[in-house]
Amino acid sequence: MSSAPDASAPLVVQKYGGSSLATPERITHVAQRVAATAREGVSVCVVVSAMGRTTDDLLDLAGQVSAGRHPREIDMLLTAGEQISIALLTMALLDQGLPAVSLTGPQAGILTDSSHGNARIIGMRADRVAAAIARGEIPIVAGFQGVSQAHEVTTLGRGGSDTTAVALAAALGAEVCEIYTDVDGVYTADPRLVPGARKLERVSYDEMLDLAACGARVLMLRSVEYARRTGVTIHVRSSFGEEEGTRVVEEEAGVEHAIVSGIAHDTSEAKVTVFGVPDQPGIAASVFRPLAEAGINVDMIVQNVSEEGHTDISFTLPEDDLARATLILDAVALRVSAAGVNADRNIAKVSLIGAGMKSDPGVAADMFEALAEAGINIGIISTSSIRISCVIDQDAVEQAVNAVHARFALQLG
Amino acid sequence: MSSAPDASAPLVVQKYGGSSLATPERITHVAQRVAATAREGVSVCVVVSAMGRTTDDLLDLAGQVSAGRHPREIDMLLTAGEQISIALLTMALLDQGLPAVSLTGPQAGILTDSSHGNARIIGMRADRVAAAIARGEIPIVAGFQGVSQAHEVTTLGRGGSDTTAVALAAALGAEVCEIYTDVDGVYTADPRLVPGARKLERVSYDEMLDLAACGARVLMLRSVEYARRTGVTIHVRSSFGEEEGTRVVEEEAGVEHAIVSGIAHDTSEAKVTVFGVPDQPGIAASVFRPLAEAGINVDMIVQNVSEEGHTDISFTLPEDDLARATLILDAVALRVSAAGVNADRNIAKVSLIGAGMKSDPGVAADMFEALAEAGINIGIISTSSIRISCVIDQDAVEQAVNAVHARFALQLG
Repeated sequence: MSSAPDASAPLVVQKYGGSSLATPERITHVAQRVAATAREGVSVCVVVSAMGRTTDDLLDLAGQVSAGRHPREIDMLLTAGEQISIALLTMALLDQGLPAVSLTGPQAGILTDSSHGNARIIGMRADRVAAAIARGEIPIVAGFQGVSQAHEVTTLGRGGSDTTAVALAAALGAEVCEIYTDVDGVYTADPRLVPGARKLERVSYDEMLDLAACGARVLMLRSVEYARRTGVTIHVRSSFGEEEGTRVVEEEAGVEHAIVSGIAHDTSEAKVTVFGVPDQPGIAASVFRPLAEAGINVDMIVQNVSEEGHTDISFTLPEDDLARATLILDAVALRVSAAGVNADRNIAKVSLIGAGMKSDPGVAADMFEALAEAGINIGIISTSSIRISCVIDQDAVEQAVNAVHARFALQLG
Repeated sequence: MSSAPDASAPLVVQKYGGSSLATPERITHVAQRVAATAREGVSVCVVVSAMGRTTDDLLDLAGQVSAGRHPREIDMLLTAGEQISIALLTMALLDQGLPAVSLTGPQAGILTDSSHGNARIIGMRADRVAAAIARGEIPIVAGFQGVSQAHEVTTLGRGGSDTTAVALAAALGAEVCEIYTDVDGVYTADPRLVPGARKLERVSYDEMLDLAACGARVLMLRSVEYARRTGVTIHVRSSFGEEEGTRVVEEEAGVEHAIVSGIAHDTSEAKVTVFGVPDQPGIAASVFRPLAEAGINVDMIVQNVSEEGHTDISFTLPEDDLARATLILDAVALRVSAAGVNADRNIAKVSLIGAGMKSDPGVAADMFEALAEAGINIGIISTSSIRISCVIDQDAVEQAVNAVHARFALQLG
């Protein structure tokens, strides 16, 4: 078969997200892209998400049938979504004369723990995928899903298809894991907010981790962690154009970095303050332990210095968890004799990220100054060696991102 | 758990079809039925089809993406349908406090050959289902689907969920396999056509096979064959009411039967006649071999006596296959020097079925007479030891079924 990929050819893993597969026309378009790569003599392994809004539609259906929380059954339900998209994309490729073959996550050997809804990959038995590639076939693998040791179907949580793609790229020794999305790469800031934002040619794993953690939606955290651990190069690019996107790679030793790589922002969090907490040992634990037990991720914890034996503890958390968190914290406040709990949904987090800032103590001061000059008040500050995050008023987010981007314009990228 | 079924209790397999599960409300209703059975102290294993029109919707989607025929991928696609319904029904049962657990066909150990789209069950490894029942759980199994020895997902073809239910009932030693549908049993004739049609309390496997083959849509042929081979009692009943339906059972030796059990009709076939065929050895094979190779099922073959060395061959086939069949037969007619091919879509087949007619030679005459008195012309006749079928004009079908039903009114049921 002249169109079959060469089994000894370099291997590329391509991952297509739900928006790239939202309609039959888009599936045909993706098939053409995969076919074009295969016809260049490159071996291809494809990972796909569920079509468009399928996952949300299935969750809606579950909500109409059941009020309970049944993670095992939700996984059984949702994995039907990718099963539909792998079958359809495979048919489209077969129509083009390419020897494609669909595989579910379990068939592709994605072994996970048994945490339904948020399973971790604990092993890869990719022999069936590897055998298909060796035969010159194009495996079309269902992302997001795996199988536990008890032979249960599991899902990997938000962004799980990216993780599937990276894990397969690592297991198969692929040259690159291409993540196709509706943006064409990682930018110095969100181009919808900052007209002058520039696409980054490359970014380090650590920077990408911080960008993702701080609100850049282009890649999910866990897939970047997996790539860093296994050394897989991720190439983020658009499924609608041909140009190069952004490569996420190991930081190269001995190479001078741009001081800052990018500016991320996140409006999906809320700020909570517990006021007048008695300043005594164990008080922070008594606040955060119950939240952790409820599975609520908190971020940017700040405790002010004590005044007259009392202190305020502030932190951010996902807005979706705020109602649950408030219930928990009201009880905590009562128990520890705190003065009260205050919540603010109207916040945004603006973060400046760059591996180069480790060695430049002036970066933080420059960022605060840029915000001050724009008349923007800073609520909470938190820093790491390669990141500075500020909580500001949500209405000021566009102005803030632009002010910081302008200030660092020459160093960015 | 007080609501858990008793593991040593009698076991019932219940199968619910797509129309019984078409909406979230109906799924909740089915869950209530299953729960009611379980609370009576009966162990239950449930088999479900895909919700309502899901299978057709998925096929429509496939048609928009691909013009080709890809049976393996169609199976991958369609099996998502039952995966959705098992998850939803299981959630609804869990909400009611019942320990349900969903299982796909492969997880339930339905082993098949590798004929995608029409796979045969070649083995049952129902240990996982049995273990769940032994633990007091209610397995909710995806019908219609299985797994081949090459670990490929397969489907069992039309009515496959009935076959899954019967096969599980046989493997688990269930007392009965209840098939819930939108009718409340097997009738002496279609009650939509014959107001006086009566529900049969019981019918033999052989009679049910002929009823199914002759157009009674209530049970698919293969599930009845499987039940006959394994001795499983099928109980056909309505998912909307409580009353007893029809039991399909072994014919009891030494029991006098009603002469006829029921009248079936089928308007989905077409009649084809090949005219002026040279009457020589091998001519029938030369007509039917190419049709068989094209996978077209023919029925009711009749060859008239020869006149002047030529004969006419008539038969019926599914109307859906008529266009393909005509192309094939035109070529055959040319090759064997036949005079021509004629097709008639406007036919119906009316069949009288009953194990008792074996010993009553007057039945056929009574049937022909009933049709003649109603002024209905008979096109083709074919008989077996327990069945008489007549092809008539399609417009006369209601009149014909009523005439035959009235004629045998006293002997029916």
